Amino acid sequence: MDKEHEILVSYRDALCEAGFLQRTTVDGVYGRSALFERLVGGVEAYLSGAGADQSPTVVRFPPVVPLELLVRSGYLRSFPTLVGSIRSFKGNEDDHRVLLAELEEGERWSSAATDTGNALCPAACHPLYPTLAGGLPPSGRVFDVYGYVFRHEPSVDPARMQIFRQYEFVYVGDSLGATSHRDLWLERAFDVLGALGLKVTTQAATDPFFGRTGRLLADSQRLAGRKTEFLARTSPSEMSTALASVNLHADHFGRAFGIRSADGTVAHSACVGFGVERIVLALLYQHGLDPTSWPSTLRERLTT
Amino acid sequence: MDKEHEILVSYRDALCEAGFLQRTTVDGVYGRSALFERLVGGVEAYLSGAGADQSPTVVRFPPVVPLELLVRSGYLRSFPTLVGSIRSFKGNEDDHRVLLAELEEGERWSSAATDTGNALCPAACHPLYPTLAGGLPPSGRVFDVYGYVFRHEPSVDPARMQIFRQYEFVYVGDSLGATSHRDLWLERAFDVLGALGLKVTTQAATDPFFGRTGRLLADSQRLAGRKTEFLARTSPSEMSTALASVNLHADHFGRAFGIRSADGTVAHSACVGFGVERIVLALLYQHGLDPTSWPSTLRERLTT
Repeated sequence: MDKEHEILVSYRDALCEAGFLQRTTVDGVYGRSALFERLVGGVEAYLSGAGADQSPTVVRFPPVVPLELLVRSGYLRSFPTLVGSIRSFKGNEDDHRVLLAELEEGERWSSAATDTGNALCPAACHPLYPTLAGGLPPSGRVFDVYGYVFRHEPSVDPARMQIFRQYEFVYVGDSLGATSHRDLWLERAFDVLGALGLKVTTQAATDPFFGRTGRLLADSQRLAGRKTEFLARTSPSEMSTALASVNLHADHFGRAFGIRSADGTVAHSACVGFGVERIVLALLYQHGLDPTSWPSTLRERLTT
Repeated sequence: MDKEHEILVSYRDALCEAGFLQRTTVDGVYGRSALFERLVGGVEAYLSGAGADQSPTVVRFPPVVPLELLVRSGYLRSFPTLVGSIRSFKGNEDDHRVLLAELEEGERWSSAATDTGNALCPAACHPLYPTLAGGLPPSGRVFDVYGYVFRHEPSVDPARMQIFRQYEFVYVGDSLGATSHRDLWLERAFDVLGALGLKVTTQAATDPFFGRTGRLLADSQRLAGRKTEFLARTSPSEMSTALASVNLHADHFGRAFGIRSADGTVAHSACVGFGVERIVLALLYQHGLDPTSWPSTLRERLTT
């Protein structure tokens, strides 16, 4: 455990010294250099192309969403420790004086803080679902979504960031279409990552549901084969990290947001999600910290 | 006032119906269509080019920063109502049961919520300053920063979003360099916006400092001529909105983050910040909701 921690700290520091990331005072929150962002842009364009044959509808959401979204989707219920809920100051001059005194003492802030009704976006596809209550065409629809998401899990592992970008292709329609989308991406996600020269393994997986009820949900997710992860080495640690996952949601989001497929039944959905920073980190670890020395076929694939 | 509100609501709805933005249940938080994002990308590339002759160091920060940053920079002190501070759940199974019961009742959540030490980024340049304690070259340095920022000011005005993107060119160095950067961008920001065919006016301005102390800060900011805004119409409302501002910080950030210029004195800084969504909205209002009908010189300038 301590050995593992040392390996990760030392590799994180190497990535910072090599000029890819900049540390802040919080673990898992980094600045990004121009070079790191060029690699992110390359991966973004590459992934966009990988799903283009599905003629997806492109939509982008900001990193902040209504807190209500996380209540309706069940995310706050199932993953409360990962959620980021946003509050702000609401008070008068007296409350402000208390706030200032608190800040003098210890840089924490407890008084006159109220919920803003906002939260951090927990998964790129979540804000999509409330927009689909209007109905779907008979064959369903595929969406291309990309953006910053937040998970409160501070870590020294550079591949476990608190704020990072997800690229997703999401199908919403009927049950058969959702299964097909899942099956298509089970194969394609492996090929897409493999074509970047990454050594990838697949694994049946579960989400980190909270508590006792959570363990039951995880068991049923595993039994139904609803989540598969695509793992790769992203650091000298021997543990692999999920670069992508393929998820069959069944009618979870359809029921939560009242989405109906063309025949009037509750819509089913499925998605593939790629962790963009993690893919860049896997490339840097597996091909080396000097992208100019990467194989020319790889560099061509990542040219934006 | 009511008339104004009606005009803004009706224009916001028109932008949503025309497929640029998607409403959520929270005012000022929108989804963005592919077309809107293409315009954002065009403005991003255009602004990047506008500052390229300064050979800036490009750096990108995620929308989440350490809360400590807002304490040190004085932002939490001066603009507490705009801040977004992030908390999460930390508790056991019993606390979780309380959380679930609260959610059943009213979709709010008060128990077992703890500060995560994170906050939303309030201005694109803020996370830059703590990275500069290592020192600066004799002529100072210019930085190109771009990213999502949060301001808790819910509004029906589509140009007053809670979460939006800022493009900034920031100088950090000595006092003379900061004044030169300010003077350069006072002229250039006007030209840059004008070259997009936008009708722009300039105005001495102040930041919305909180409370009585805040009014004194605003007065001194105005007297010293430290903030200039570039305003334009972004909707049928007769009120203009700031598309950009040029700010002379003097040694505010230098002192707060212990940054020294090459001669050992406390560093001074200045920045120009552009509101990217606001520029897109000004273009849509002033040139019309069909970008294919915009003047060809404008469309060429915005080609990414």
